[in-house]
Amino acid sequence: MGRTYPLNHWYAIATSAELTDRPLARMICNIPLVMFRDKDGAVAVLEDICPHRKAPLSSGFVVDGAIECGYHGAQFDAQGRCIHIPSQDVIPPRGMTVTRFPALERHDMIFAWIGDDKRATPDGIPDIWSANTDPGWTAVHGYHHVKANYLLVLDNLADLTHLAFVHRSTIGASGRTGWFNNPLRVAIDGDTVRTSRTMRDISPSGFMLMTGRFAPTDRIDRFQTSDFFAPAFFTVVLGGEPAGTQEEMQRPHHIVLNSVTPETEETSHYFWSVCRTAALGDQHITDEMYRLTRLAFDEDADMLERQQQAIRTDRSGRPLMNFQGDQGGAAMRKVIARLIEAETEEQAA
Amino acid sequence: MGRTYPLNHWYAIATSAELTDRPLARMICNIPLVMFRDKDGAVAVLEDICPHRKAPLSSGFVVDGAIECGYHGAQFDAQGRCIHIPSQDVIPPRGMTVTRFPALERHDMIFAWIGDDKRATPDGIPDIWSANTDPGWTAVHGYHHVKANYLLVLDNLADLTHLAFVHRSTIGASGRTGWFNNPLRVAIDGDTVRTSRTMRDISPSGFMLMTGRFAPTDRIDRFQTSDFFAPAFFTVVLGGEPAGTQEEMQRPHHIVLNSVTPETEETSHYFWSVCRTAALGDQHITDEMYRLTRLAFDEDADMLERQQQAIRTDRSGRPLMNFQGDQGGAAMRKVIARLIEAETEEQAA
Amino acid sequence: MGRTYPLNHWYAIATSAELTDRPLARMICNIPLVMFRDKDGAVAVLEDICPHRKAPLSSGFVVDGAIECGYHGAQFDAQGRCIHIPSQDVIPPRGMTVTRFPALERHDMIFAWIGDDKRATPDGIPDIWSANTDPGWTAVHGYHHVKANYLLVLDNLADLTHLAFVHRSTIGASGRTGWFNNPLRVAIDGDTVRTSRTMRDISPSGFMLMTGRFAPTDRIDRFQTSDFFAPAFFTVVLGGEPAGTQEEMQRPHHIVLNSVTPETEETSHYFWSVCRTAALGDQHITDEMYRLTRLAFDEDADMLERQQQAIRTDRSGRPLMNFQGDQGGAAMRKVIARLIEAETEEQAA
Ligand code: FES
Ligand code: FES
Ligand code: FES
Repeated sequence: MGRTYPLNHWYAIATSAELTDRPLARMICNIPLVMFRDKDGAVAVLEDICPHRKAPLSSGFVVDGAIECGYHGAQFDAQGRCIHIPSQDVIPPRGMTVTRFPALERHDMIFAWIGDDKRATPDGIPDIWSANTDPGWTAVHGYHHVKANYLLVLDNLADLTHLAFVHRSTIGASGRTGWFNNPLRVAIDGDTVRTSRTMRDISPSGFMLMTGRFAPTDRIDRFQTSDFFAPAFFTVVLGGEPAGTQEEMQRPHHIVLNSVTPETEETSHYFWSVCRTAALGDQHITDEMYRLTRLAFDEDADMLERQQQAIRTDRSGRPLMNFQGDQGGAAMRKVIARLIEAETEEQAA
Repeated sequence: MGRTYPLNHWYAIATSAELTDRPLARMICNIPLVMFRDKDGAVAVLEDICPHRKAPLSSGFVVDGAIECGYHGAQFDAQGRCIHIPSQDVIPPRGMTVTRFPALERHDMIFAWIGDDKRATPDGIPDIWSANTDPGWTAVHGYHHVKANYLLVLDNLADLTHLAFVHRSTIGASGRTGWFNNPLRVAIDGDTVRTSRTMRDISPSGFMLMTGRFAPTDRIDRFQTSDFFAPAFFTVVLGGEPAGTQEEMQRPHHIVLNSVTPETEETSHYFWSVCRTAALGDQHITDEMYRLTRLAFDEDADMLERQQQAIRTDRSGRPLMNFQGDQGGAAMRKVIARLIEAETEEQAA
Repeated sequence: MGRTYPLNHWYAIATSAELTDRPLARMICNIPLVMFRDKDGAVAVLEDICPHRKAPLSSGFVVDGAIECGYHGAQFDAQGRCIHIPSQDVIPPRGMTVTRFPALERHDMIFAWIGDDKRATPDGIPDIWSANTDPGWTAVHGYHHVKANYLLVLDNLADLTHLAFVHRSTIGASGRTGWFNNPLRVAIDGDTVRTSRTMRDISPSGFMLMTGRFAPTDRIDRFQTSDFFAPAFFTVVLGGEPAGTQEEMQRPHHIVLNSVTPETEETSHYFWSVCRTAALGDQHITDEMYRLTRLAFDEDADMLERQQQAIRTDRSGRPLMNFQGDQGGAAMRKVIARLIEAETEEQAA
């Protein structure tokens, strides 16, 4: 199997809260990375291997905004340049440099550019995380390590039909009919895929009841709009209005922000936020939203791991099949395939 | 190393008690299988992978005698045909079929035919499990997952000389002399190998004392007859009469029924029963027979795992050697080798 | 990666205390070995695999100075010759022999010759372990299983610059300046490398204070001499005299004896002793020396495992780099490389 992800893109690699004054190690796209903050607090991302004897740099400490290797104390700045070697005065002119990856920190998320660093552009990253930090929202954040290829995680996000099965005993218990009865609209636009669905005259969702936006007996029109930004970001906006509303619904009740980052070909990092516009600051609701979301993604992670395992032992060579509910996911995979192909052709050229 | 088992045969895959109203997953001959019961309670065996997105079918539930995939709820009948897809009305005409394996349930054992299903014949399976359910017998059943190739497990069953060593502190403590002093008779007949031994004027075995068939001071003539049915069934009949009996001994005191099924090339499923004709229904004796047999097979499984591990690190390329006590095992392996060769030639033809 | 160790050498395989009346199994240079004591108590080393059915011999017992296979009881003497088979009177003339490795026991250490046994010479082993058993010394012994290639362990021993980093919170807290300010002398002599350093007018080391040889306020001249005996032995002699001493310092305060033996290409056995000439027989000091040394080597083992892991995921193909403090280690690796090359050429010739 070839590589399943394009390289010349920004990938989420951590949340801001994870990166304290200690180095943070994480494998991204099969490359071991170490993150740390320089003197100004800016994020630096280097390959996590010391050019001296190949100890991981993350075994050491952050010293004055540089990272100090834990084995013999060589220090490297945010650019990956060696700036200090304890046992000698002269720094070798060559060979003592660590590969450095462009990094960005935005709205409590940290991103790195994994491919050709000359092509990294800060505006290549969609501005979708503001609800993480905007005072008009209250957010919960989470991280799941998923033992499955990142495409399987994206499939899972793009697909709503699994709710009634994977989450049958938790969040999927209700609303099953709503999903299947209403048409899905899928629109591809460049590297993005929008999937949307409107459901008329149904019950409010669990989260809408939780915040008190609607009462259990209310009948409402609900909408759900998902935006995929290739290769690995996925937002879902959910909202509702009293049944019979005439205007196009746009006011979000809450949004789910998802970043899926390949760790290896068979494992992924999955960062998520749920940000709401109602009952701001109510800690009990915040805790409950975190608990339920975590629970649901635990169920997904468990199924994804079983799926990956079955794929690993599969010898049929048969391709995955698509149901009607997979239109969004299929469009998404098509965009990703095009990006990978383009990179492969460029490299060949 | 090539495949060490022939495919066009029935293999034991579960005991009846294991298969309740939930799907049961088990890898057999390197193929992940799922078992469930159809509406009539008959056993269905399918490949454990959903044609949709390759989740394991065993992640789901049994619904009205069909298996429902745990991911998106597609349902498959006992023949592996897709009969329901929740998110769409039409079932794709092709591609949504799961490989189905012929299955049989007999005397509390479940079997599957792993090779070419057009050649599966219910009478290709020897009728040796009746003591499992016959009211004239009392049976105990067990299952061991053994981390060794199935041939090593069969070797272990065919060989009695290990009793004094592997089981020195448990069942092997006595009777050592008897085994070595009396000639072994080995007879190959088609795909079966019979090994038998008569021991005159010795003490009763532990199990014979336990049931009260004989007293500790009795001197008896004992017989033990093993029948191997290729590729993977093995029965042992044990009995005894007061010393000096003139007729050929045939009356069993107890029999041991063994089925050894390849899981992978280095692991096996081992199903066993011990069925006795004496002290029927005495629960204390039943418990004790189970406990002692389980203990002995635990010791075997431990040694087999160590043997497999040593074989894995062996680089000598030297073949296994046979002692005199290995005549039965050697005959058994010869039959298996012939079956594999025949299959290979057929496929080549 | 080719083999990183030469074969025609003595390697430490156990301490005498480890080898009691039970067989001891250990993989050395990728070969599974079993050790036992013959009737005279001499160490025998055989390949740990029975020629009969390839069970590990170490699964059995030592019987009258021979090893009895745990599976079917075949017995082998210290030369690897089969001397008994329970189920038959005749021992097969060929094929029932186990590879035997020359073994030596000296000063509480056990060694084996792994390569061509016709070239094994008892005098090929340096006489450096006498302090282990000499009444003029008090010794503590330890063993670490290290998840890193043995060369990385040797690098670690040859290098003192890691003390201030890996052991920053334990033994490396003091004395940092001393190491860096004083020149290292490196001398290669055949298959040995001597590295030495003299530090004038500094504080006594922790161990020197512990035994009462010096007081905390004393100023002393210290020396440290390391001798590497290829491929895998490494001694460090440490001592000190009141500051201003004119003679060449030779009187050891304590020595560290190290044997590093490849287990596989990515794991090692590490045997160590710390032997002192002061406060002989003081059990509290003995316990404390053991505790501190074990603690420090735990820290090393942890770093070495992380280093090995980073090397495993490294795809750069860049060689390891040397700092000034690596002169000793570099010389050591050069000697080892020469030994391997010589063996390779011989085999080709
Ligand atoms: S390995 Fe990093 S400084 Fe030596
Ligand atoms: S993977 Fe089975 S229904 Fe989707
Ligand atoms: S395997 Fe060792 S005696 Fe049989």
